[in-house]
Amino acid sequence: MRIDGALLERRLDELYAIGDRGLYDSAWAAALDRVERWMKDAGLETHRDAVGNLWGRAEGSGKSIVTGSHIDTVRNGGRLDGALGIVAGLTAGEALLKNKGKPRRPLEVVAICEEEGSRFATNFWGSRAIIGAIDKPDAEIAAAMRERGLDPTKIASAARDDIDTFVELHIEQGRVLESARTPLAVVSAIVGTAHLEVTVTGQPDHAGTTPMDLRRDALAGAAAMVQAVESIAKSLGKPAVATVGKLNVEPAQINVVPAMVVFTVDLRHADLGGRRALEERIRSLCGRISEERRLGLAIRTLQEKAPVAMHADVRALLARAAQECGVQATEMVSGAGHDAQILASRSRVGMLFVPSIGGRSHCPEEATNSEHLLFGTTVLAKALELLAY
Amino acid sequence: MRIDGALLERRLDELYAIGDRGLYDSAWAAALDRVERWMKDAGLETHRDAVGNLWGRAEGSGKSIVTGSHIDTVRNGGRLDGALGIVAGLTAGEALLKNKGKPRRPLEVVAICEEEGSRFATNFWGSRAIIGAIDKPDAEIAAAMRERGLDPTKIASAARDDIDTFVELHIEQGRVLESARTPLAVVSAIVGTAHLEVTVTGQPDHAGTTPMDLRRDALAGAAAMVQAVESIAKSLGKPAVATVGKLNVEPAQINVVPAMVVFTVDLRHADLGGRRALEERIRSLCGRISEERRLGLAIRTLQEKAPVAMHADVRALLARAAQECGVQATEMVSGAGHDAQILASRSRVGMLFVPSIGGRSHCPEEATNSEHLLFGTTVLAKALELLAY
Repeated sequence: MRIDGALLERRLDELYAIGDRGLYDSAWAAALDRVERWMKDAGLETHRDAVGNLWGRAEGSGKSIVTGSHIDTVRNGGRLDGALGIVAGLTAGEALLKNKGKPRRPLEVVAICEEEGSRFATNFWGSRAIIGAIDKPDAEIAAAMRERGLDPTKIASAARDDIDTFVELHIEQGRVLESARTPLAVVSAIVGTAHLEVTVTGQPDHAGTTPMDLRRDALAGAAAMVQAVESIAKSLGKPAVATVGKLNVEPAQINVVPAMVVFTVDLRHADLGGRRALEERIRSLCGRISEERRLGLAIRTLQEKAPVAMHADVRALLARAAQECGVQATEMVSGAGHDAQILASRSRVGMLFVPSIGGRSHCPEEATNSEHLLFGTTVLAKALELLAY
Repeated sequence: MRIDGALLERRLDELYAIGDRGLYDSAWAAALDRVERWMKDAGLETHRDAVGNLWGRAEGSGKSIVTGSHIDTVRNGGRLDGALGIVAGLTAGEALLKNKGKPRRPLEVVAICEEEGSRFATNFWGSRAIIGAIDKPDAEIAAAMRERGLDPTKIASAARDDIDTFVELHIEQGRVLESARTPLAVVSAIVGTAHLEVTVTGQPDHAGTTPMDLRRDALAGAAAMVQAVESIAKSLGKPAVATVGKLNVEPAQINVVPAMVVFTVDLRHADLGGRRALEERIRSLCGRISEERRLGLAIRTLQEKAPVAMHADVRALLARAAQECGVQATEMVSGAGHDAQILASRSRVGMLFVPSIGGRSHCPEEATNSEHLLFGTTVLAKALELLAY
């Protein structure tokens, strides 16, 4: 079945031209209106739920087969993150309806209202509403909802328990596929993440008058810990990753031995045991370094998210779809979070990744070759056909 | 010869009560007036030179024997840095005049106007004027001079070529003497310092989607360099010291692999060869680390000061003075800069250090035991006696 690649690209261009979309802002509203028009053009029945998720549905019997992604973007974001999953789902669905007629099961395309934490200190707002996991919005979000004509007291009504399978096409946002020269991957799991904040305390001393052996240098100790974080992640092997992204030094004077360093650790693994092993080894080695150097050490967990495995049946089905389109599927772990990890609590979920050029994402340079975009959409259409027809 | 310890402490208290003294500010002027009154009380002829150095002189023949230190303080400074050298010199001189009468050679006590860079971006302002090394003040300093009745066009007149020997008593500002339980040290040399700024550039990547082996992490590389700076200084041995005091990360986001790190290195050694060896080994190891990690590296020299040896005759004389007061002299390198390193270009110079409690300095907790203050002043008096009588 042929997908209209030109239409796909044109729709992506149109959404990108609208600009950055923060939850409930005017660009967000304009983008949603545009997608709703496309859904109607494709012959889908549209409906907006209580938080502003936009659904386009082709009727069938039983629980729904759903595809889509999020409509919001990060600030100064790119053309594909979120947008691709919506546009590809819509274009694939449109082709199916045109070529295969009415589906056996309900087939739906969803534009999820928010995933990025793009405007408020929230993430997965749309998908959390779909699984019924939002109690009550805070006052600021509630006010923004009312401005868009949405009633914050009705959020519970957005919950769905009739979604059988959710499939999402997304850009990889890393360089794994590009490095491996692979056009497509089936996601096996979305990593679990822990964010730690590590505080190392030493003693501020004069950089000239304090011999090396009398120092308690917080930065020299923190540097050893940064090295340890990297080497532990490397030694555990893929898909373990650990990153020190922020590091602040006090008093930050050129001629004073640092008294305090605070740094963050972002650590991820595809299974909970792996993530815990990573964290335990990092905590233990930081402890040893601080003892050897007579430094104070405090480690605080800022955030913890468990890894989520994609459903085995859906993985197998996506692999089959890829094979029917002529490619042996690669599997990979997603290092970034996606709506699928939220929806997994109530539905079978699966994801497809297409390569990101240079691994760039969350920036205007975010791009994927046209043939990869088209191939990903073609495999998505095949998967939806296998699921819904 | 007995030094009046109570008088010494009272004078230090009085100066400290005046508060922080920035060059040419009102506290600075008040402190100088107070010291001038004490000089006159002690029977010294006073004179202020063109930059505001205050001299108190007992006449004699030939070139002068001078003692003293700087009157300015760092912000939120302590009771002893600079103040001790002036008050001890004055109290020792007063005791000598009372007990030993008129000196054979001119004996002078000086309150040097500035050493700390306490108010303007200058250092050693007073001592540089004394060796004739100041061409012309910048507009801001010139304005401040005029406010104090000093004529900026007359700075050259502050130069002296009739100082035979300059001796300064100072607090150590480190923990070497305290750790060794030694009441006094003769300074052998003042370290040379180089300040480097190191810029490490890598690639910003998503902390979740970028496997460890595809990263060019600027902070992981910088951490290896911080470790190298420490280990090179340790392996070269005393008196080499090297310190990374400042370190900034870009973009400093918890989930982004650092793209750039800028850090400083303060490195010091008592001889030029040692300092250069330290710098060369640091540059070379940073280069190797950046190559191995495919990181960009740029190293810029911010400042360079050569080490200055104290005069051998003066060191021997100070050791003899200590011995006559009942203590075998320890020698040590000064890790901090002092006026003596400037005056060394025209005169024989020497320094005595008394211990700093906990090594604290440049803060209100800066302190030295009373018996150490008294002993240091007694040895200084003995040295001045040996030099001027």
